[in-house]
Amino acid sequence: MAEEKKIPYKIYLTEDEMPRDWYNVRADMVKKPAPLLNPATHQPMTAEELAGVFCEELVQQELDNEHPLIPIPEEIRNFYKMYRPSPLVRAYCLEEKLQTPAKIYYKFEGNNTSGSHKLNSAIAQAYYAKKQGLKGVTTETGAGQWGTALSMACAYFGLDCKVYMVKVSYEQKPFRREVMRTYGASVTPSPSMTTEVGKKILAEHPGTTGSLGCAISEAVEDAVSHEGYRYVLGSVLNQVLLHQSIIGLETKIALDKYGIKPDMIIGCAGGGSNLGGLISPFMGEKLRGEADYDIVAVEPASCPSLTRGRYAYDFCDTGMVCPLAKMYTLGSGFIPSANHAGGLRYHGMSPVLSELYDQGLMRAISVEQTSVFEAATEFARCEGILPAPESSHAIRAAIDEAIRCKETGEEKTIVFGLTGTGYFDMVAYEKFNNGEMTDYIPTDADLQPGFDSLPKI
Amino acid sequence: MAEEKKIPYKIYLTEDEMPRDWYNVRADMVKKPAPLLNPATHQPMTAEELAGVFCEELVQQELDNEHPLIPIPEEIRNFYKMYRPSPLVRAYCLEEKLQTPAKIYYKFEGNNTSGSHKLNSAIAQAYYAKKQGLKGVTTETGAGQWGTALSMACAYFGLDCKVYMVKVSYEQKPFRREVMRTYGASVTPSPSMTTEVGKKILAEHPGTTGSLGCAISEAVEDAVSHEGYRYVLGSVLNQVLLHQSIIGLETKIALDKYGIKPDMIIGCAGGGSNLGGLISPFMGEKLRGEADYDIVAVEPASCPSLTRGRYAYDFCDTGMVCPLAKMYTLGSGFIPSANHAGGLRYHGMSPVLSELYDQGLMRAISVEQTSVFEAATEFARCEGILPAPESSHAIRAAIDEAIRCKETGEEKTIVFGLTGTGYFDMVAYEKFNNGEMTDYIPTDADLQPGFDSLPKI
Repeated sequence: MAEEKKIPYKIYLTEDEMPRDWYNVRADMVKKPAPLLNPATHQPMTAEELAGVFCEELVQQELDNEHPLIPIPEEIRNFYKMYRPSPLVRAYCLEEKLQTPAKIYYKFEGNNTSGSHKLNSAIAQAYYAKKQGLKGVTTETGAGQWGTALSMACAYFGLDCKVYMVKVSYEQKPFRREVMRTYGASVTPSPSMTTEVGKKILAEHPGTTGSLGCAISEAVEDAVSHEGYRYVLGSVLNQVLLHQSIIGLETKIALDKYGIKPDMIIGCAGGGSNLGGLISPFMGEKLRGEADYDIVAVEPASCPSLTRGRYAYDFCDTGMVCPLAKMYTLGSGFIPSANHAGGLRYHGMSPVLSELYDQGLMRAISVEQTSVFEAATEFARCEGILPAPESSHAIRAAIDEAIRCKETGEEKTIVFGLTGTGYFDMVAYEKFNNGEMTDYIPTDADLQPGFDSLPKI
Repeated sequence: MAEEKKIPYKIYLTEDEMPRDWYNVRADMVKKPAPLLNPATHQPMTAEELAGVFCEELVQQELDNEHPLIPIPEEIRNFYKMYRPSPLVRAYCLEEKLQTPAKIYYKFEGNNTSGSHKLNSAIAQAYYAKKQGLKGVTTETGAGQWGTALSMACAYFGLDCKVYMVKVSYEQKPFRREVMRTYGASVTPSPSMTTEVGKKILAEHPGTTGSLGCAISEAVEDAVSHEGYRYVLGSVLNQVLLHQSIIGLETKIALDKYGIKPDMIIGCAGGGSNLGGLISPFMGEKLRGEADYDIVAVEPASCPSLTRGRYAYDFCDTGMVCPLAKMYTLGSGFIPSANHAGGLRYHGMSPVLSELYDQGLMRAISVEQTSVFEAATEFARCEGILPAPESSHAIRAAIDEAIRCKETGEEKTIVFGLTGTGYFDMVAYEKFNNGEMTDYIPTDADLQPGFDSLPKI
C-alpha cells in the first residue's frame, strides 16, 4: 500500500512520450470487418467511389486493413500538443467514497474546449481536407461535441465548416451552437428544409426531433452538391477509430510507465469512436495473444444496438444515401426516444467494434439513464469533474464493478474512458436534480420498425 | 531559435513540485495594507470581531502580515492534486498568428469544473470551516465561478452551502445554477426577500439587476443569523490572495525550470483574487529588490476601480454590514452597468493590491468589452481554449503588447493569467457573434454617486 501511493493522482505523459503513430487494430484482426457496400450495386465501395464523399487520404485510411501503424503528421501532432497528452487519473477519492479494494483509473478527454475526445479525429480530418485543397467540410452533430470539435479544427486550418445539428440538441443546447459560431461554423437544425433528404424526412415525420442518421444524410447531400466540399464524420468509420486510438495508446503508455496491468476496460458506446479508440491497443494485444482483458461496452438501454440489435448490413443514415455498413444495428428506421439525454442515440455501431463483439472479444451491457445520472452526480461530488451524460454510462459500469469488488474483496484494476464534460448538458442535469428524469426501455414492438427497415442483402 | 523550441506547449509540474506553502506577500511589504475597520467604531477589527463572520483559522490568515510562508494542509494539497498543478502554456499558435517576436505564456486555471482559479481558495476555506466543526457556509457569486467552486469544495467536505447569486448572472446563466445544485448547493438570486438587507435594497432599487456588493451583504447576514454558519468570500480579502498565490508560485517554478525570465506579467482585475495570486511571488522579488517586472492589472472600462477610483476606506458591500477596507474603490453605492458581460463588476479592489498599486509597484489599464471579445475570439480560434470574458481582459492586453513588440522588434516575454473558461458565458458570446454587443464607459457624472457614498473617515 505504501508503494501504491507513488502513483500520482494524474499521470501526465510528456509531449515527447505522445505516440507518433496511430494504431490500426484492423491490421491485427484475422477476420476483418466487412467492407462498406455501394447502396445501389451492393458491391464493395471502391476508393474512387468513396472519394466523392470523403477526402482522399481519409479514404485510404478507411480501406487500410493491413498497416498496423499510421504516422501522425507533424501538423496534427502540434495541434494535439495544445491539449494532449490527456491525463490518466487515479480515482483515489471515488475509491475512498466507495470503500472498494478496486483500483479505478480514468482517461480524461474533456480538457479541451470541444469538451470531449472528438477533437482527436476532427483535427485529423480537417488537416487532410486542407491538404487536399478543399474549401470546407460538412458534418452532423448529435450532442454537439463533434460539431464543436470540428469547428475548432476548421478555425485552426481556415476551412469553412457547415454543421447539421440534431434538432433536439439544437433546442436543448443553444450554447453549443454559439460555441460553434464563435469558431466560425454555420449551424443548421436537422431535419432542415435546406436539403432534399431533410424535406423528405420532415414530410414523413413532421414532429421529429431528429436523429444522427438523419443529420448525416443532410450533411452528405450538402457536401456532394457543393464544389470543394467533402463530408466528415465523428464516429462509426474505421478512420475515426484509427485517429481515436491515440486515447488508448496514451493510456497504455501511462499504465506501462507505472507497471499497471488493467483487468477491465470500460467505455461508453454510441457510434463507437471513444470505445474503439480506448480499447484499440489492448484489443491488439488480445488479438495477438499477448494479454487478456475484460473489455466492456456500455450503451443506453434506450438505444441498445449491441445488446439488442442485429448484426447485419444497414444504412449508416436515415436518408439511405451513405454506403451500407455491416454492423450491430437497430435499423436506420429506428428513431431514438427524445427522452434520452445524451449523445449515444445512434442506431448502429462501428463495423470494427461490431466484428470484434461478434467474435466474442468484448462484451456489452446497457444501463438506464436515471442510474447514469446518479453515478454522474456521485462522481462529480468526489472527483470534481462534472461528466458528460455519455461518459457517465462508463462511470455507472465502473462504480457497479467497484461495488462488486467490495463484496468479493477483489483488487481489480478498472480503467474507463471519461470522454467529456457535461457543461452543456445542464438541461438534463436540471431534470435529474428536479427529480423529473424518467427511463425509457423500448419494447420488442418498439424495435420492430427499425428491424423492418433493414435492407434485404 | 532551435533551443527555443525545447520549451513544450504546456509545462506541467509534477505533483511533487507543487508548492507546499502559500506565499504571503504582505510579509515582504514595508508599508502594509491598511487594516480592516469596524464599521461602527472605525477601529481596527480584532480577531474576536472577525471570528463572528469568518472561520477562526481564516481570521488568523487575514490578519497575518508577518509570515511569508503558510503551510498548505495535506487535505487541501490532496484536493489540489485532482486539478493541479495547472499548466503554464506557451502560446505558440497565438505568437505565429500575430507574427510577433514576443514570447507569450499563460497560466491556465480553467481545467476544473468550476471553470476558474476560484477553486484554489474555495477548497481552503471549506477545509477550515470543516475543521472548525461548522455546519455550512454562505457566500455570494457574481459570474458564478466562485459559487461553483465553493459548491464543489463543500460537496467534497460534506458542508452545507448557500449561495447568493447576483440576479443578472442568475438570469443569464441558469446552467451555472444547475452546476451548483448538482454539487448540492442552494442558490438564491440577489437581491432577495430572504434577508433584511435584500428587502431594503429591493425597496430602494426595485429594478436592480444586483451587484456583488449587494450579494455579499445578504450572504453575511445569512451567516451571522444562523448557528454553525460562517461567511466565505472569493476575492478581495487577504486570505484569498494568500490561497491564490499557488497560481504565481507554480508559474514561477515552471518558468525557473526552463530558465525563463518574464518581462511583463498581466492579470485581469475584479476584486483581485487572480491578479494577486498570479503576481505574488514576482511582487515579492520586486519588494525584496531581487528582480523587476512590469506588472499590469487589466480592468473593464465599465468598472474602473484602479484607473478611475479613489484610494479610501469604503464598505466592501452595498448593505454596509462588512468591515471597512482601504482600497481603490468606486464607492459601494456604485451600481455597475448590466451591459457588462463578465464577472469583473465589483466596486472595490483587494487592499493588498490597492496598496501595491498606490506604491507604484504595478500599473493598471482599462479595456472595453467589444475589444475584449474580439481578443477572446482570436485567442479561441488559434489556441483552442474558449476563454471566460474576465480572463479575456488579460488576453486583450497581452495581444496589444505582442503587436507593439512586432512594431518595435522587442522579444519581450509576456506572462498572463488565463483564469477560466467561457462555457457558461455563451449569452455574451452570442451577443458578440450577432454584432449586438456595445461598450459602456461611465462619465464622471456616472461615477459621482458612488464617490458620494464613501464613508467620511
